[in-house]
Amino acid sequence: MSDIVWLDGQFLPRQDARISVDDRGFIFGDGIYEVTRCVDGRLFEGPRHLVRMRAGLAGLRIDQASLPDDAALLALHHELLARNDLTSGQATVYLQITRGSAPRAHQFPAASVPPTLYLSASRITPADALRTTGARAILLPDLRWARCDLKTVNLLGAVMAKQRAVESGAQEAVLHRDGVVTEGSITNVFGVLDGVVRTHPVGTRILRGVTRDVTLELLHAMGQPVEERALLLEELPQLSELFYTSTTQDAMPIVRLDDRTIGDGTPGPVARRLGEAFARALHDAKRLR
Amino acid sequence: MSDIVWLDGQFLPRQDARISVDDRGFIFGDGIYEVTRCVDGRLFEGPRHLVRMRAGLAGLRIDQASLPDDAALLALHHELLARNDLTSGQATVYLQITRGSAPRAHQFPAASVPPTLYLSASRITPADALRTTGARAILLPDLRWARCDLKTVNLLGAVMAKQRAVESGAQEAVLHRDGVVTEGSITNVFGVLDGVVRTHPVGTRILRGVTRDVTLELLHAMGQPVEERALLLEELPQLSELFYTSTTQDAMPIVRLDDRTIGDGTPGPVARRLGEAFARALHDAKRLR
Repeated sequence: MSDIVWLDGQFLPRQDARISVDDRGFIFGDGIYEVTRCVDGRLFEGPRHLVRMRAGLAGLRIDQASLPDDAALLALHHELLARNDLTSGQATVYLQITRGSAPRAHQFPAASVPPTLYLSASRITPADALRTTGARAILLPDLRWARCDLKTVNLLGAVMAKQRAVESGAQEAVLHRDGVVTEGSITNVFGVLDGVVRTHPVGTRILRGVTRDVTLELLHAMGQPVEERALLLEELPQLSELFYTSTTQDAMPIVRLDDRTIGDGTPGPVARRLGEAFARALHDAKRLR
Repeated sequence: MSDIVWLDGQFLPRQDARISVDDRGFIFGDGIYEVTRCVDGRLFEGPRHLVRMRAGLAGLRIDQASLPDDAALLALHHELLARNDLTSGQATVYLQITRGSAPRAHQFPAASVPPTLYLSASRITPADALRTTGARAILLPDLRWARCDLKTVNLLGAVMAKQRAVESGAQEAVLHRDGVVTEGSITNVFGVLDGVVRTHPVGTRILRGVTRDVTLELLHAMGQPVEERALLLEELPQLSELFYTSTTQDAMPIVRLDDRTIGDGTPGPVARRLGEAFARALHDAKRLR
């Protein structure tokens, strides 16, 4: 079955999906994206992704008038999954919206230029094997800009950090700025210190992950003490657990950070319970659309 | 005459120049660019742009093996100008190189994936009229990442700042970080204080503009005292002149910054002499290729 994507109003084979060299996504990275987890053709926390998508468009002041409404966007996701034979098993839908195509000038183009809307879908293999052993991470300075709360495609900071991680034999880079852990290159980061789960508060320094929010809900439901307060670099040696969260990997324990073993070097109790809670949440009808 | 561009090994009409939705320029802003000023079909400081281009590729670790060598790239620029009937008068050539097209993953794709090479050319009208009256600018916080020395297409910081400037009736935004002026949204910034021209030193906080370097050379040739030392925000009220430099606008006096008049509100003597020096330099055979 061929790989079908949605671009500018139509479904078409991926190899035929091509954008103008004048697209502001290509020229300026001027756009936002979302990646939504899909289980048996349904969207995990789909509406939350759309809320964040619209917040990102508003943050970049990309006009939404010509874009489909939420119901139509959800229907597009579903149709795309169906056309790619992804209505059973696990998948992701990738959505990207750019400020459209216009002659190159940094300032916004005329209001008549419509945004570019692109969606694609891919099968994924859940990261259960890695979750059993735990992941490795490296610690890197956070070089990104001052609006990390916007999920934009200006992703070079993430690209370079993730590449460094992979070359180090790690799965993720944990970033720090001004003495505190912000987040991962493409994930949110949580640590357990003295029995309390800590993570960076929302604000301009991190992306508010949908999986981050679900993680907080699941932790609360477990009765686990949680504090949205950034981990200090000097607290890292005292952590009993460290884990990251992402749309595709749920909660992933980190058992080694650079040359430091976290806890006893195996996934800790909080991450293990979270993993079980995510396995249930992914099939919770209230979270699926 | 149709607008002809170069994309992935061939000349073709702009409307036929389309890139894959998997291009890492579109998905991650994972690439660099250059804009070179052209006079009567020749490239102003062309080799310097290629030096910076290669430094940017090295900075992002984009493999250069499959790219044309400098001589071939210069020839491509010339051929593109000829095919667009831009061998007389002023123009720019835009060049962009991305890390190529591959299934989406933040880390680098396989070494076998070739970079995408795109060039286009446009006629420009020199900004002489604005230079006579002087430009307006606004002061904004510099929100960009920590590697402003790389001329990447992660340009949202510049896009949002330039848009703010345009909406304020200004031509440029002057950016500040940690109490000092860094550069403009798409230009370098210079000020004159107590008879000395000051500009931010090279480093990771600014892009080392080719026009910035030419400006320094022209100032030295004039015997003008120059110091590569950042202007402090609190020094701005004492400036006798303020100007920005860019490939398309040479040296452009700023006569108003927010609500503050610079000097007497007209282009000052340093900027005027620089304007005359640029007019000569643009036709200096030693600078043209």
